[in-house]
Amino acid sequence: MHRSHTNGELRIENAGQEVQLAGWVQKIRDKGFMIWVDLRDRYGITQLIFDEERSEKAVIEQAKTLGREFVIQVTGTVIERQSKNEKIPTGKIELLVSKLQILNGAALPPFTIEDETDGGEELRMKYRYLDIRRNPVKESLIFRHKVTQEVRNFLSNEDFIEVETPYLIKSTPEGARDFVVPSRMNEGQFYALPQSPQTFKQLLMVGGMDKYFQIVKCFRDEDLRADRQPEFTQIDCEMAFVEQEDILNIFEGLTRHLLQKINRIDIAEFPRMSFEHAIKTYGNDKPDIRFGMEFGELNAAAKHRNFKIFDEAELVVGIAVPGGASYTRKEIDKLIDWVRRPQIGALGMVYVKCHEDGTYKSSVDKFYNQEDLAKWAEETGAKAGDLICVLSGVADKVRTQMSALRMELAERLGLRKPNEFAPLWVVDFPLLEWDEETERYHAMHHPFTSPKPEDMALLDTDPGKVRANAYDLVLNGNEIGGGSIRIHDKNTQALMFDHLGFTPEEAKEQFGFLMNAFEYGAPPHGGLAFGLDRLVAILAGKETIRDFIAFPKNNSGRDVMIDAPSKIDAEQLTELNLKLKH
Amino acid sequence: MHRSHTNGELRIENAGQEVQLAGWVQKIRDKGFMIWVDLRDRYGITQLIFDEERSEKAVIEQAKTLGREFVIQVTGTVIERQSKNEKIPTGKIELLVSKLQILNGAALPPFTIEDETDGGEELRMKYRYLDIRRNPVKESLIFRHKVTQEVRNFLSNEDFIEVETPYLIKSTPEGARDFVVPSRMNEGQFYALPQSPQTFKQLLMVGGMDKYFQIVKCFRDEDLRADRQPEFTQIDCEMAFVEQEDILNIFEGLTRHLLQKINRIDIAEFPRMSFEHAIKTYGNDKPDIRFGMEFGELNAAAKHRNFKIFDEAELVVGIAVPGGASYTRKEIDKLIDWVRRPQIGALGMVYVKCHEDGTYKSSVDKFYNQEDLAKWAEETGAKAGDLICVLSGVADKVRTQMSALRMELAERLGLRKPNEFAPLWVVDFPLLEWDEETERYHAMHHPFTSPKPEDMALLDTDPGKVRANAYDLVLNGNEIGGGSIRIHDKNTQALMFDHLGFTPEEAKEQFGFLMNAFEYGAPPHGGLAFGLDRLVAILAGKETIRDFIAFPKNNSGRDVMIDAPSKIDAEQLTELNLKLKH
Repeated sequence: MHRSHTNGELRIENAGQEVQLAGWVQKIRDKGFMIWVDLRDRYGITQLIFDEERSEKAVIEQAKTLGREFVIQVTGTVIERQSKNEKIPTGKIELLVSKLQILNGAALPPFTIEDETDGGEELRMKYRYLDIRRNPVKESLIFRHKVTQEVRNFLSNEDFIEVETPYLIKSTPEGARDFVVPSRMNEGQFYALPQSPQTFKQLLMVGGMDKYFQIVKCFRDEDLRADRQPEFTQIDCEMAFVEQEDILNIFEGLTRHLLQKINRIDIAEFPRMSFEHAIKTYGNDKPDIRFGMEFGELNAAAKHRNFKIFDEAELVVGIAVPGGASYTRKEIDKLIDWVRRPQIGALGMVYVKCHEDGTYKSSVDKFYNQEDLAKWAEETGAKAGDLICVLSGVADKVRTQMSALRMELAERLGLRKPNEFAPLWVVDFPLLEWDEETERYHAMHHPFTSPKPEDMALLDTDPGKVRANAYDLVLNGNEIGGGSIRIHDKNTQALMFDHLGFTPEEAKEQFGFLMNAFEYGAPPHGGLAFGLDRLVAILAGKETIRDFIAFPKNNSGRDVMIDAPSKIDAEQLTELNLKLKH
Repeated sequence: MHRSHTNGELRIENAGQEVQLAGWVQKIRDKGFMIWVDLRDRYGITQLIFDEERSEKAVIEQAKTLGREFVIQVTGTVIERQSKNEKIPTGKIELLVSKLQILNGAALPPFTIEDETDGGEELRMKYRYLDIRRNPVKESLIFRHKVTQEVRNFLSNEDFIEVETPYLIKSTPEGARDFVVPSRMNEGQFYALPQSPQTFKQLLMVGGMDKYFQIVKCFRDEDLRADRQPEFTQIDCEMAFVEQEDILNIFEGLTRHLLQKINRIDIAEFPRMSFEHAIKTYGNDKPDIRFGMEFGELNAAAKHRNFKIFDEAELVVGIAVPGGASYTRKEIDKLIDWVRRPQIGALGMVYVKCHEDGTYKSSVDKFYNQEDLAKWAEETGAKAGDLICVLSGVADKVRTQMSALRMELAERLGLRKPNEFAPLWVVDFPLLEWDEETERYHAMHHPFTSPKPEDMALLDTDPGKVRANAYDLVLNGNEIGGGSIRIHDKNTQALMFDHLGFTPEEAKEQFGFLMNAFEYGAPPHGGLAFGLDRLVAILAGKETIRDFIAFPKNNSGRDVMIDAPSKIDAEQLTELNLKLKH
């Protein structure tokens, strides 16, 4: 071992001991007669001291050759520090160095290895191994490890078995694009990398595994949006002989366990909300319920007052902004500009100031009297001092716009506190959604999701109204997981494929093995999957996932550190029976 | 929940309770007036009883429609069984059924779902989800889960951090063939699937992660031999600021922990043996040391006695077979046939019977007197009653042949006991091995393995003699893991690439990012990787890994259950800028 202790370990109790440390040079202060070096490793920082009076000359000379990020090994005596540093656990001591060995030199790093760095995103990605030395990144990776250990402990204690499913599987055109892997041994054929282990976990249920989980990489060849990765990690779970309620309870338990163990927070309430309610009240299916600002529908109180815009709108909807009555005209104009940005797309915004004296002042006073506006305040829950913001238009669109405005204002008002956690189940999702492009219904979750039995009759008459036994777990306005009770009998599954526009031949070609499995005694089953990258980020109070992934890819799907993907040998292509088209 | 208890849970203490069970019909005995059904789930079997006197007629009629592997849910009362079954934990009770619901029917399974099945390998693979219902497969997967949990607990307690490294990486022509993944977003370029996270774990050490592990899938596009899988799982580890001894100690600890927790066995000794010693004494670098039969080198005592075959041989080597003196002539002839099979390739075998009266009888009495043979007995450790088997020829080949004979005889003699464990470190591996085909040296482990400093001088004069800081963990004659102290300075790494025949350009092209990383302060580091599939099989006392993999592939790399790999759409190929050559 190149060390007797780590750099986070020594305390005043160790004073007088001779120890050996190793690590990276974080900082050097050279006063000529005295040199201090901050020595860093994963566990902390220990101050080294080289001193004309107490150290040998040769050692001091050697210390003068050190540079930032040199890797060194030192032997010395732990001594009490004169000026103590209360900010770090080793701050009461320093090491008087008697022997110094340079284990490796270091070129000047392309950015500073400090908590706050001067390195831009691209540079830090290229030198990710240096970025990982920085506390924020290092701690994020350690945090992720702790979360996965807790997930595994909780689920193992609940009798779940982690089963590894294969990575080289079969391509299915349904869903997002697959990454494919040409097979050399099976000429002209391809494996696909899994978008999720969905069918395998269902087969494990048919196989009697009863409770399955896996923390597993999944792959999607999508055009990348910000904060999407072509490979990502799921906590994937499935259970047999369960109903929706059982699954919600188990994973509510997991979420409570994580918040308790990781964040030391006990969650009292774990509410459930229907998809329909979420959409009507928050304008989206993953509401952040840490703050109010719920939607008030104002059609009754706003239409038929000769205000043409509202009269022609399908939906008039408002929210109350706490303390917003004090906004200046300029501030409100900025808000109006904000909702009119193309990314939001509102045509305008009506507002009402709720004064402390109980009167209202709106931008549409020409059409609405105090009584009307009082009604708006009632519907939106606005109190004296609040500002009511009102949007109108086609229901779907205006809800999305209002949701964006609500989140933006909450962010500005500091209502989205990173250390406050409000989980929520959203349930009763629609089974199908209409796709304008292909002009047919698609499965909202996936084709194995079971419809609610009481809604089955609607499949033929009003498919969009059929609700599924599907649920999402939402945490602080982010969807962190979702799942469903699956179809477990072959007739219902065939019916579903039919409604999704698969011919029996296509269904057989793509999912034949699952349909076959259903012939041999499939139990009722269901499950869910958590997106681990996002879950970890949110538990850490962050919203970007990149720092929680050791070696992330950029928005073009490139790993700029190793420079992948890259060209391959012609010979390798030939072996795979492939050639490039151009 | 479709059940109040599992089928492994009810005891005599539950008698009188009304419970609900669910599971698969394992067996039906229909006596007309009474029907017994064995109901199975992951947790066990509970006997159900339907009885003319105590059950409603409708329920009995329904029970008569059941078939094997039907999925049912029953409600009933726990009663004491008349004829108890002591073999199963639920054997003292049965469930008098009052209500039966068929949750799903089942076609007749293609093989019996019993511990001993009538299904052949291919059939069981095709219906793997049914095979998993069988106890031996199910228990193997649960066993694997327990092993991985213990690995994670041990390493986490030792401050290792599990870090996920990427699956979409860069292809390198070194080593085995990569599976590649065409990139749609980066036209004409390919990712590769990792053969191991080797370079990433080294980068994590450069990044200061200090102690890393990961249980991770790896991929190799090899022509498959029996019991090899194109995707396999590694326990991958790396540590910084360590020497070989530190790594051996930690992973000796892990191995002890697993044997203790999983097998309830405390390992007293954990011997270490040099590669050279292993080869000389056991003829291979992964000796099974649970039994003796060590090689005796007989050159001195066998040459120059006018026996031409031995005189011309580079090596004459023998082993003592315990109790083998009693073998009949026919048995010995069969043994000689066995070593002459093309898979072994010996030209013949000389033998010596060591009689109880202290005399020797050999197949070469014409050339050797009793004194010579006594010397052979001494060299091989043969005692009265043993048989000495002697092979001769070119040293390398004859050692391999003798090793095969030793293992075969030990197997026949029952010396390879599945519940006895003898781990062993083999150390001091050669750094390089000569490749006849390319007529150059290859890295025996990989190009990042560090040479022993004291052997560095030999690199230019006698490269084959240079020993590496490399080690393998051997368990019961199987290599279950291996690793090395890595090179951590760029000069040594460049020297190694040079000796391995890489031009500086090739080295830069393939490993540039690692060489770059070494510029910025790489710590001394090393690690190892365990093959999880094999480790789990051996801990379970088995040698075939397939039953410990949920969904294995066959020898052509096919998943016969899902029928992968398979053809993909022309459209998908076009998107990837690819076409098939023919």
